[in-house]
Amino acid sequence: MIIGVDEDDYSRSVYTQQDVYDSIFFAINQYHQLKNVSLGTLGYEHDEDDGSGLKICKQQYKKGTMLPSNDTLNIDVAIETDCIRLEPQALANKKVNDLDIKNSSFFNLEFYRLIQVELSFKLKGIDLQTIHARELPDCYAFQNTITFNNKAHSGKVKIYFDSDADIQECKDWYISGSIVQKNTQYILVFDGFVIVSCFASLILCTRSIILALKLQKRFVNFFLEKYQRHVCHADRLEFINGWYVLVIISDMMTIVGSILKMEIKAKNLTSYDVCSILLGTSTLFVWVGVIRYLGYFQTYNVLILTMQASLPKVLRFCCCAGMIYLGYTFCGWIVLGPYHEKFEDLNTVAECLFSLVNGDDMFATFAQIQQKSTLVWLFSRLYLYSFISLFIYMILSLFIALITDSYDTIKKYQQNGLPVTDLHEFLKECSSIEYGKELQASVPFICCCGSHRRRQSDDSLILIN
Amino acid sequence: MIIGVDEDDYSRSVYTQQDVYDSIFFAINQYHQLKNVSLGTLGYEHDEDDGSGLKICKQQYKKGTMLPSNDTLNIDVAIETDCIRLEPQALANKKVNDLDIKNSSFFNLEFYRLIQVELSFKLKGIDLQTIHARELPDCYAFQNTITFNNKAHSGKVKIYFDSDADIQECKDWYISGSIVQKNTQYILVFDGFVIVSCFASLILCTRSIILALKLQKRFVNFFLEKYQRHVCHADRLEFINGWYVLVIISDMMTIVGSILKMEIKAKNLTSYDVCSILLGTSTLFVWVGVIRYLGYFQTYNVLILTMQASLPKVLRFCCCAGMIYLGYTFCGWIVLGPYHEKFEDLNTVAECLFSLVNGDDMFATFAQIQQKSTLVWLFSRLYLYSFISLFIYMILSLFIALITDSYDTIKKYQQNGLPVTDLHEFLKECSSIEYGKELQASVPFICCCGSHRRRQSDDSLILIN
Amino acid sequence: MIIGVDEDDYSRSVYTQQDVYDSIFFAINQYHQLKNVSLGTLGYEHDEDDGSGLKICKQQYKKGTMLPSNDTLNIDVAIETDCIRLEPQALANKKVNDLDIKNSSFFNLEFYRLIQVELSFKLKGIDLQTIHARELPDCYAFQNTITFNNKAHSGKVKIYFDSDADIQECKDWYISGSIVQKNTQYILVFDGFVIVSCFASLILCTRSIILALKLQKRFVNFFLEKYQRHVCHADRLEFINGWYVLVIISDMMTIVGSILKMEIKAKNLTSYDVCSILLGTSTLFVWVGVIRYLGYFQTYNVLILTMQASLPKVLRFCCCAGMIYLGYTFCGWIVLGPYHEKFEDLNTVAECLFSLVNGDDMFATFAQIQQKSTLVWLFSRLYLYSFISLFIYMILSLFIALITDSYDTIKKYQQNGLPVTDLHEFLKECSSIEYGKELQASVPFICCCGSHRRRQSDDSLILIN
Amino acid sequence: MIIGVDEDDYSRSVYTQQDVYDSIFFAINQYHQLKNVSLGTLGYEHDEDDGSGLKICKQQYKKGTMLPSNDTLNIDVAIETDCIRLEPQALANKKVNDLDIKNSSFFNLEFYRLIQVELSFKLKGIDLQTIHARELPDCYAFQNTITFNNKAHSGKVKIYFDSDADIQECKDWYISGSIVQKNTQYILVFDGFVIVSCFASLILCTRSIILALKLQKRFVNFFLEKYQRHVCHADRLEFINGWYVLVIISDMMTIVGSILKMEIKAKNLTSYDVCSILLGTSTLFVWVGVIRYLGYFQTYNVLILTMQASLPKVLRFCCCAGMIYLGYTFCGWIVLGPYHEKFEDLNTVAECLFSLVNGDDMFATFAQIQQKSTLVWLFSRLYLYSFISLFIYMILSLFIALITDSYDTIKKYQQNGLPVTDLHEFLKECSSIEYGKELQASVPFICCCGSHRRRQSDDSLILIN
Repeated sequence: MIIGVDEDDYSRSVYTQQDVYDSIFFAINQYHQLKNVSLGTLGYEHDEDDGSGLKICKQQYKKGTMLPSNDTLNIDVAIETDCIRLEPQALANKKVNDLDIKNSSFFNLEFYRLIQVELSFKLKGIDLQTIHARELPDCYAFQNTITFNNKAHSGKVKIYFDSDADIQECKDWYISGSIVQKNTQYILVFDGFVIVSCFASLILCTRSIILALKLQKRFVNFFLEKYQRHVCHADRLEFINGWYVLVIISDMMTIVGSILKMEIKAKNLTSYDVCSILLGTSTLFVWVGVIRYLGYFQTYNVLILTMQASLPKVLRFCCCAGMIYLGYTFCGWIVLGPYHEKFEDLNTVAECLFSLVNGDDMFATFAQIQQKSTLVWLFSRLYLYSFISLFIYMILSLFIALITDSYDTIKKYQQNGLPVTDLHEFLKECSSIEYGKELQASVPFICCCGSHRRRQSDDSLILIN
Repeated sequence: MIIGVDEDDYSRSVYTQQDVYDSIFFAINQYHQLKNVSLGTLGYEHDEDDGSGLKICKQQYKKGTMLPSNDTLNIDVAIETDCIRLEPQALANKKVNDLDIKNSSFFNLEFYRLIQVELSFKLKGIDLQTIHARELPDCYAFQNTITFNNKAHSGKVKIYFDSDADIQECKDWYISGSIVQKNTQYILVFDGFVIVSCFASLILCTRSIILALKLQKRFVNFFLEKYQRHVCHADRLEFINGWYVLVIISDMMTIVGSILKMEIKAKNLTSYDVCSILLGTSTLFVWVGVIRYLGYFQTYNVLILTMQASLPKVLRFCCCAGMIYLGYTFCGWIVLGPYHEKFEDLNTVAECLFSLVNGDDMFATFAQIQQKSTLVWLFSRLYLYSFISLFIYMILSLFIALITDSYDTIKKYQQNGLPVTDLHEFLKECSSIEYGKELQASVPFICCCGSHRRRQSDDSLILIN
Repeated sequence: MIIGVDEDDYSRSVYTQQDVYDSIFFAINQYHQLKNVSLGTLGYEHDEDDGSGLKICKQQYKKGTMLPSNDTLNIDVAIETDCIRLEPQALANKKVNDLDIKNSSFFNLEFYRLIQVELSFKLKGIDLQTIHARELPDCYAFQNTITFNNKAHSGKVKIYFDSDADIQECKDWYISGSIVQKNTQYILVFDGFVIVSCFASLILCTRSIILALKLQKRFVNFFLEKYQRHVCHADRLEFINGWYVLVIISDMMTIVGSILKMEIKAKNLTSYDVCSILLGTSTLFVWVGVIRYLGYFQTYNVLILTMQASLPKVLRFCCCAGMIYLGYTFCGWIVLGPYHEKFEDLNTVAECLFSLVNGDDMFATFAQIQQKSTLVWLFSRLYLYSFISLFIYMILSLFIALITDSYDTIKKYQQNGLPVTDLHEFLKECSSIEYGKELQASVPFICCCGSHRRRQSDDSLILIN
Repeated sequence: MIIGVDEDDYSRSVYTQQDVYDSIFFAINQYHQLKNVSLGTLGYEHDEDDGSGLKICKQQYKKGTMLPSNDTLNIDVAIETDCIRLEPQALANKKVNDLDIKNSSFFNLEFYRLIQVELSFKLKGIDLQTIHARELPDCYAFQNTITFNNKAHSGKVKIYFDSDADIQECKDWYISGSIVQKNTQYILVFDGFVIVSCFASLILCTRSIILALKLQKRFVNFFLEKYQRHVCHADRLEFINGWYVLVIISDMMTIVGSILKMEIKAKNLTSYDVCSILLGTSTLFVWVGVIRYLGYFQTYNVLILTMQASLPKVLRFCCCAGMIYLGYTFCGWIVLGPYHEKFEDLNTVAECLFSLVNGDDMFATFAQIQQKSTLVWLFSRLYLYSFISLFIYMILSLFIALITDSYDTIKKYQQNGLPVTDLHEFLKECSSIEYGKELQASVPFICCCGSHRRRQSDDSLILIN
């Protein structure tokens, strides 16, 4: 039996009628012999409302004759669905002959009008592994479906296996031999502690941001009244500490993630993915936040400063490069799609091109384009050579030029001081006499300003551009 | 049976006489059992003029004896071709014994004089998949050829499978159960709309180019008469907007491509490749054209400016680097060709070297060169180390130097203004009094010039070199 | 039999009960037929105290019934271990029937409570290969264990093979036909010579370092007394020659490594790994040390100078980049762990990301993430695109900026001379008259200083920053 | 039968006694059935002096008993060789029973003392493929050897197949049906033409070099007499045109290569490799030589100029980096050799590290190191991370810094003119009056100098350092 593996969608393919029959009967057989075959602690599900056992459904066009030799076609495209149900008990008890099933009219498939065959069955399992960790075992219910997909009528039947698991508490358990207990309380305490501390951090940071916004408002008004000048946007932004925003986002993610984690632990929820994405992203932000403390040392914050200084340029540059990239992506998808599996999908083309720029296996990509059509072959060479040359030799080099340029600017600022804005001018002369006199009314503001001064001068570097 | 896979030309290879016979009889067998084996809606073709069924032809040298043990050879190199035809019906009805065929004298192949065996047969198929999209099914005629190629007489017989498909409208169809209709009119309307708008864009851009050329002519004459100066080539080029040229090319491609697409839809043509290349390339150009609009923001057009500023240098540089590259390509092909599959073909060598420079799987390339000949092994090491070092460490670094240099130039221009040419000088003083007096005769020209001024000043940046 | 290969831990997996039985009996069978199967010179071990033969142990939960269909579970988690021993002689002599073993109650495994089956046996072998080198053959004792691990109760049984070898001198050997002798004395002499010369080098370098430290102390005191100035840390460090430290470490490693090597040769020790790591690292240091002599030529030491000048910056920069890297590592591990084998392990994630930055097979990494959960799929794209873009386009470019900057600094120093420190000032005027007079008391010091001067001026370059 | 493939040396491995016997008898069998199995035109060789047929030799230690269980060993290491010869005719005629051979005492191998089994046989073949090209067919004699290597006595027998081909003219041939003729005369004429033109080029270039050397001598003497100044080495080198040297080398290689090619065509020689290396390298040089003509345009020779300007720096830099590279190579070989196939061989380690730096599959290299010994595993991580970081982040970046620096220098020279040497000073004033008067005696020299001037000024750029 030749079974093709289609890696992209985890399906298998069969190409002959015999292989389809063999595959179906193999699945039925394995289902019936479950107890003797499986190494896992699996059993059949007895579901009252839905019935139990193996349900086999075939979908086919209602009727039809097709004589490809005469280009003749007579088909009723209404789809009829036909199902049978095989009980595991029945089979085990009454020793239903395997041949009986195979010869039944149901399994006399007419492939020219067959659309799909679907085998679905439910299994239950007990996960004993948790016993090692002195936790209670979990019980699972699996809803499995095997689909033989002939929708394309292309001579290839794709076989998909799909399994959905539901976690449940075991109804009836008795475990002796050692004290098994749900020692999840310690983890719960830890989770609670995490939530509480994140909440505290969240509140403090939010308070700082709010105070900063108030201060900004007062500063803007003050400037407007005294000097009849509007404070520029960049100066306004300096009041808001970007790190605090990062901490707030990270904290919120951690809190929601931890609550989800506790719910999952308590088996009320199964949204592992959402939980892991929230907790994972917050971890990323926490680590990134550590750079802030490194930034207090002048020499350490080159990375952050250069990245922030070059970010607007890089983004603008990426816009332009992205246009060309998008153009190549669409062009490759349209032209090379039918000839190369990496170009089958718009999303895959983008990944393939991105990988090629960053040093992926180029020769294989070149070689896989079928040489059947000379025109397409020539196009593919032109396409790949031009894309790679353009992106590796010109665009990547321009990135280096952009970053080197930003680094030089930052270095110059670190040596010569920053370009002075209204805010800095104000802060500089804030404690000097002249300003002092004018601003006697707003003494608390000045104090506050004084205490903020050190941090602001660090931050001011960050907010250039 | 050992069947080797030769990935480069999608052929299979067999190495023993038994395997050749088995392969031939397997193909015959599968053809006869088509109905019982195939999952697709396939049928035999009944072609009156060409006959039907499976046609098997063998080509061999007319006669010969060959005694390799005695270095003796007696051969008539005239090629004789011998064919038989196996009818599917005949076989099915009369139950022709498989053994009869196998033992027939035709299949008593004398491999020392056999050149090739060719199995050719026609099949017809109906593509039902379109029914899902509520379109009419298509009928296909497949012309298949299986070739057992022994031309090399090297002890290896290569097997090729080749299939050509012709799309046809089905002659006789009756589909009930749901309203199936050729709902292609919407797509046709859309295609028509695309063609019309591209045509409009094409005309407008062509008009702009023509007007610009006229303006250029007048400007050149004016300059020659008034100042006795010839306008330099660069200044003349500034009148032609490169973006318009891009749009024109893109539009023409889209129009031709869309017409082809409509013809393919109407099943009059099957040149998918030409159509997809035209539409794909025009898509690429459209996306690249978007950069133009980004270029209206001063800070956004760094990519385009730097690319255009560095392009002449890069091209000149590529000429030189290309010489060394070509030298290495030829050298590798000549020396390493017989020892490494990546060096078998001039075209493949170029791809392999290009991939190596851009970070391909180097170790595998190193390792695959057989260590049989120490001299070649040493040469291959010298060749690869020198090529990679030269190109990655020197030439790629020079690219970066070139681009960085161009970026610095562009940055300086953006800060200090451009170097002034005759045209700019003229445009600058165009609205000032002195020029104005002199040019009173050509007032409409000046207005035109004035309206063009803004755009030109953007473009002028682009045309620096 | 379907046997899955898990590449990461060199295990195999089986999925059905029959496969488990087959694997166990295959192992037993091969053990009994050792003499007829193996090509090596292997024999059974007769161990008095431990017994001999094949020991099979199964671990299982004490008792239990499990009805997954009813979510019912009754298990005694106390683990009972049951062993049998199969004597090779017994089997060979008495022709114990294979069937007897297979049908014994021991092999009636109840998989739902089975934890693991372990087959352990000892073999002895003689390594004849050494005879070619005219050395005595070695005898080995192998302790082999085959483990069928069902701890997860997941339906997959993992099979591990583990073999530990002990080298022993053969007890009783008689070799005729050619004079076999332990000609290891020459190697011993060579090892001894290496140790002696490394020891000499070690002593000399240590002496230099100690003298330099003394000189430094005197210099510091002298400066404090005469000029009331503290000598800065950088100036102090200049007294210690970094190369000498490298030589000392290298020498110590070589000495310890060589002693280990002699012990291994004499079959007293088997710690090959420690020995090879010591000797390998010392070789690396010796080669690096060669650069020192190249550094005596002004133009040659650009690499070392630039590396040393940029090292502090690079390290500081790596701290910051490392935070982001760590963040991505943790985030990837938490979120993508269950979906991609490269993200299963924290250590593997780090390697995978590091490899991706340096041009690894990106497309494969993209493609392998299962498309089952759209959320995770989207996250993975965002994660990979952002990580690769950030690290390749920004951080790698910043590295280039850092190094280019350092190179320019070094080049400027080489042209214009170094920035002058106290020490250099002192050394410069050391031989001039004014200083000379003041320092008459410390003439020997000045001479010493004079002789050191040339080397110091070289070193001073190295110790910038 | 489990047959392992060892990719590095094109061998196969077997692990059981049965597999060894099966492999031997399969080879014997295939040899006997050659006519019925092979697809090629092969026959047995009848060699009078050497005998014909299949020669099987086994080498084993003279006698021995080995009881690994008791660590007991009694062996006579003298090697005895035992051979039998199986005639193909004999076997075919007398229908020697296969079983007779298998049961013969010769094939009763005692593996504990067996060293190797060697099957050798000669075959003759006729290459008919040339008939298509209307050339005469070639006859080949193949000397084949199959070696079962048990030297290691490790339980694994390696099987090597080695085939040497000798090309011969067929003794006795009669080809009818079409005019077959050795139409090699055209190729001979072409080869002759190539040789003659290369010879002409060689003579002219040599003459130029000799004249240039004479001119140099006169210039040196003239300078010494008139100005009492020695001409510096760089000025002397400017007289010798490096391109001419390249052309001379290329020409000599082409001539020798073409002569070899003609000899191979005439079947007097079979040194394909030497011929292809000579012709390939000369092709490389010819293409590189084309750059010279591009260099006549000022703007085109940036690549060559920058490469030549940076070459000394790069080479000096490579010396230093090479030391660290060598250190890592040795260190990796010593420590990781037994754990990773890429580190088995000093040469392979160098290739692997070189590939890693240039973007090879890193993750696979990381992953393949067995995790058995934690110490080695830790070392390997440290080794790989440090090596890759050092080389990719620091050394590759320094390359870019070096090249960028050289490019800037070249650009400055192109804008501001070159630094002036004695020769240029002299050439500059060569045609001016003052010099002219002094040098009236050497007028022909000055003319010559004048004619050389243009070329020299181009070359002078090239020879900067």
